[in-house]
Amino acid sequence: MTSQDAYTALLDHARQIEALGQVAGLLSWDQEAMMPPNGAEARAEQAGAMSSVLHAKRTDLRIPEWIAAIDANSLDSAGRANLRLMQRNYDRATRTPADLATEIARKTARGHGVWADARARGDVSTFLPTLSEIVELVREQAVCLATDEQSAYDALVDIYEPGATADSIAAIFARLRTGLVDLRGRIAEKAVDVPVLTGTYPAEAQRALANKLAEVFEYDLKAGRIDLVVHPFCSGTRGDVRITTRVDEGDPFNCLYSTVHETGHAIYEQGLDPALAWQPAGGHASMGVHESQSRLCENQIGRSQAFCTYLFPQMQAHFSDFALGSADDLYRAINRVHEGYIRTEADEIHYNLHIMLRFELERALICGDLQVVDLENEWNARFEADFGRAVDHPENGVLQDVHWSAGLFGYFPTYALGNIYAGELFAAMQNALPDLQDDIRDGKLREPVEWLRANIHRPGSLESPSDTIARACGHKPTEAPLLDYLNLKFGALYDL
Amino acid sequence: MTSQDAYTALLDHARQIEALGQVAGLLSWDQEAMMPPNGAEARAEQAGAMSSVLHAKRTDLRIPEWIAAIDANSLDSAGRANLRLMQRNYDRATRTPADLATEIARKTARGHGVWADARARGDVSTFLPTLSEIVELVREQAVCLATDEQSAYDALVDIYEPGATADSIAAIFARLRTGLVDLRGRIAEKAVDVPVLTGTYPAEAQRALANKLAEVFEYDLKAGRIDLVVHPFCSGTRGDVRITTRVDEGDPFNCLYSTVHETGHAIYEQGLDPALAWQPAGGHASMGVHESQSRLCENQIGRSQAFCTYLFPQMQAHFSDFALGSADDLYRAINRVHEGYIRTEADEIHYNLHIMLRFELERALICGDLQVVDLENEWNARFEADFGRAVDHPENGVLQDVHWSAGLFGYFPTYALGNIYAGELFAAMQNALPDLQDDIRDGKLREPVEWLRANIHRPGSLESPSDTIARACGHKPTEAPLLDYLNLKFGALYDL
Repeated sequence: MTSQDAYTALLDHARQIEALGQVAGLLSWDQEAMMPPNGAEARAEQAGAMSSVLHAKRTDLRIPEWIAAIDANSLDSAGRANLRLMQRNYDRATRTPADLATEIARKTARGHGVWADARARGDVSTFLPTLSEIVELVREQAVCLATDEQSAYDALVDIYEPGATADSIAAIFARLRTGLVDLRGRIAEKAVDVPVLTGTYPAEAQRALANKLAEVFEYDLKAGRIDLVVHPFCSGTRGDVRITTRVDEGDPFNCLYSTVHETGHAIYEQGLDPALAWQPAGGHASMGVHESQSRLCENQIGRSQAFCTYLFPQMQAHFSDFALGSADDLYRAINRVHEGYIRTEADEIHYNLHIMLRFELERALICGDLQVVDLENEWNARFEADFGRAVDHPENGVLQDVHWSAGLFGYFPTYALGNIYAGELFAAMQNALPDLQDDIRDGKLREPVEWLRANIHRPGSLESPSDTIARACGHKPTEAPLLDYLNLKFGALYDL
Repeated sequence: MTSQDAYTALLDHARQIEALGQVAGLLSWDQEAMMPPNGAEARAEQAGAMSSVLHAKRTDLRIPEWIAAIDANSLDSAGRANLRLMQRNYDRATRTPADLATEIARKTARGHGVWADARARGDVSTFLPTLSEIVELVREQAVCLATDEQSAYDALVDIYEPGATADSIAAIFARLRTGLVDLRGRIAEKAVDVPVLTGTYPAEAQRALANKLAEVFEYDLKAGRIDLVVHPFCSGTRGDVRITTRVDEGDPFNCLYSTVHETGHAIYEQGLDPALAWQPAGGHASMGVHESQSRLCENQIGRSQAFCTYLFPQMQAHFSDFALGSADDLYRAINRVHEGYIRTEADEIHYNLHIMLRFELERALICGDLQVVDLENEWNARFEADFGRAVDHPENGVLQDVHWSAGLFGYFPTYALGNIYAGELFAAMQNALPDLQDDIRDGKLREPVEWLRANIHRPGSLESPSDTIARACGHKPTEAPLLDYLNLKFGALYDL
């Protein structure tokens, strides 16, 4: 087999894997957005069948043969990235024994229901046996995945953020924490009165404005759709990227900012380089980079004073009884700093503290320093230390997030990495686009989105996640621009 | 391997095939009902990948080994049916060379667009080259599939209606035609004035009533959903059976009777025996039997005088300006006999003549007696002979149906077989349920649907399609009950 033939065969195989992976993704979207309740049992069977088909494709013994037959020097940068990613994916798939993968899939499929039940009843103890089994299985998987240089937890982090390690994350989180705690302390000293939204906001009007905002952020509805779910997410890639959102008639910002957040994810997928379609190098770089796109849209742009100037008349036009009196009131209302229990409702400062708590607990769980039976106490103690208030209910504490019941360990830190990357990217974007604030004020986001496309979306996975960010912002990413941005923004808001 | 082990392995494999087939079905539903336009390109790739995965599963060399290792005498009737169906499916899958299957999939995927284009422009010639290629490929496939006893066209019919042959269909169609032409002739001699619906009927009210009718016909919305598409269809099985419908604000009957028709398909799938889930024996018997369920709901029940007594006040309640003045006017309006061009809009008499035309033309195409280049002339000549009027536009003639562009040859006759079976089943149902007409008048269809469940739905594929019908009605199915029903109904309507 010539090098060219082997490369063609490898790409063809990658294309099949990508196509089948997209099908599996559609199954998940449908399950949350469309499936009738009685479809659940068959859906589990369908998802299981797809997962076993995908596992077989990903561990196809011809993959290493093709790779061995390819002369890497004959390839361009995309070709070399494809080779690296196919090798990486093959290694990961073959390192996890098929039985273990099946057992994890089965246990986490059931885990969701057990978690949801325990959460609804506020009874942590009914979730712990399942969580113990899941932690045990994921730890076993992590040990299988880890290279000589990696700890078990490193291997899990590497799934979602290739190249990141627990130590590198801990270091950047420690510096970020210092800045956040300092800023929060200064805010707490001020007793600033923040406007709070009251009233009722009809679902249809919320959805109409959400659709409009998605389009303002350059979401292409010819390549997507927006539906309602319980927990919003974004699904799909390129020509078919679907957003989901939710509606709370007492809080239109929930729907609007969920939508803008998911739009940030969606425009990343819609903006990937068409020339690299179906190639591993053409996919998104990492979950952290993904989150940087959603958070930059949601926060750096969407919660900015400039955007509130655009949004305020939109709110008035869509809601006849909009209860806030000015763009400035709107700006202050949506940026209220408060020590809430819930990560997904946290302000830009506390959000990262929520993530650090989870990162440290899950890292300890995986490396064996913390046992599941002690998790709730540890969570509550850590929360009180970090947030200055006691957890009142497990739903507001250790049971609030779905991730661990789904076997997702190593995923949480990518949320805060996303914020750090967003800080870097927004600083670079501001330097590159002198009219940025004016454009945001006018609701004209074509230029900033095009900057993201050129610097993040189209480069895809050609380089590692941190190299992708470094190329976009001109240096190795650090927490500094995020802290500068937060200090400037909340310094002005809270008159520090 | 023991017989029991082999049977367990075979059923496990069947389960995987069924699960993956359901996924492929969901892809199709999504494509018509949900997918954004720019998703089309990737969807073709996804469908192709699923099709090649399914082909590999269906031709797994272990299937004949398992079957050989199983002692059929040790199995119950469901087990023997599973064995028969697995053998049949394996034979069919292995007889079609993989390359040919791929080529057909590719050509028909493109065929749809070419057909839709040609139809929109009224230009048959732009469709003919594609159709020629498709006919050539399907003919080749038919030759591969045909057993020694089968003609090529028989082999295609057998895909959709196992056990049926072109000759057996031609014989029953000939007898049916005689009766239909006679009845139509007698109607034509009468100049009865039939009420025609005018007015505008809001989409939302149509959808609300359509949902209500679906539930009247015992459709379980916890195991399904109803969405809008261009060409309605039913998709899925058991706990997840989705209906699609369409809305024409000038003609509410279009939406309502499409919905009732698809509901007939849906309750069949929802009513399959839960004890036979994931087993080949537990699936629907054939497309003809499927169509018998939809047509019986739509026509024998839905277009009956008794049902119009129920429907009339519903129409008044849902549409403030409903333009027909009585249940009798409603009954006569929805049963107007007319020589229309379009199959899907045809009355119960002409519908079958439409099918016969297509059956004879496609049979001639596959056996080589008719060339694609002559198809339009032949269609137009046949139509004028059968319907007494000239085709005015290809959209009303040879380009009206999607089937041939999709490579579906041998499928059309199952529509008329469905009508014949519905005639048999309704006669048997009337004998079994003395209160049937009263129940229909009250919109209480639990008993008739339960009769269908016991006699058709739960028996699934335990027996051949015609044996299934024969067991339900007590004799080998013939056209006689359908003709009796039509003569009685239209005799009264047209005062013959």
